Amino acid sequence: MAEKKKPDMLQPVTDDTRAAARDLLDNATYASIATIDPKTGDPMCSRIGFATDSKGHPVFIMSSLSGHHAALVNHPQTSLLIGEPGSGDPLAHERISLFGKAVQVQDEEDRASVRTSYLSRNPKAKLYVDLNGFTFWRLLAERAGYVVGFGKAYALTSADLKA
Amino acid sequence: MAEKKKPDMLQPVTDDTRAAARDLLDNATYASIATIDPKTGDPMCSRIGFATDSKGHPVFIMSSLSGHHAALVNHPQTSLLIGEPGSGDPLAHERISLFGKAVQVQDEEDRASVRTSYLSRNPKAKLYVDLNGFTFWRLLAERAGYVVGFGKAYALTSADLKA
Repeated sequence: MAEKKKPDMLQPVTDDTRAAARDLLDNATYASIATIDPKTGDPMCSRIGFATDSKGHPVFIMSSLSGHHAALVNHPQTSLLIGEPGSGDPLAHERISLFGKAVQVQDEEDRASVRTSYLSRNPKAKLYVDLNGFTFWRLLAERAGYVVGFGKAYALTSADLKA
Repeated sequence: MAEKKKPDMLQPVTDDTRAAARDLLDNATYASIATIDPKTGDPMCSRIGFATDSKGHPVFIMSSLSGHHAALVNHPQTSLLIGEPGSGDPLAHERISLFGKAVQVQDEEDRASVRTSYLSRNPKAKLYVDLNGFTFWRLLAERAGYVVGFGKAYALTSADLKA
């Protein structure tokens, strides 16, 4: 007996798809982040400030007092959602879910470069980027789900996400 | 030797806090949802359409083809982020992270009522709410983190979230 096949919602990825996904990342100033609560093992969803570094990699800043900071230290694999609905149905607007490992930016020179990229996108963050307990992190994106509208989705590889 | 105490970022919750958090929930049309990928155990962040039901409980709709649907069936404990940054620093704008268990709306009468609430908030969803594979879910919120600006946060109980 033939198995019932799940309808395939995924569209073929083209250069236009890659460019549109890049555009979304290159203009975002914030993201939602999903982490795992170290105490309960349950998911947590919170907001982070977002930018891309000089090579196009997603970067973000966290306070060591935030719940997502403790969660990422414990379980660095994470997911970031980017894309802001306009008017009308919120599911009709494009968004991208990134999946990968979050790594703290440790190297001095690297941090200075990320700081510049971050502040050019989020200038008001200059009030706190250098405060004690604030650290920059980079997402090593392994794959992404890119949805451009109702039922129209693409699976992107890390190569597709390259700047 | 005295333990180094973490500075307490939490503010005392007042009636004004509760009213402002309610207001955020009562006007949101979408949310970010954090779930756990059943295949990898890693977090996933995606977008859902959002409303509140006649009693003020968070409700949302999902397609059975979505990744977060499969994830919630496997691990119903979840977290929803609500709140939309305006201009300026994205971390200066209010947002609420809800934590609780997602339960599918099964009862016919209940579903009809949730459908009405949902469509009054998201009228364009009438194109798909009744399609095969679309189901309504309710979040039984146990607690929430409500952040109204940089470093100003409240811990809310399920009682604080009552309509």
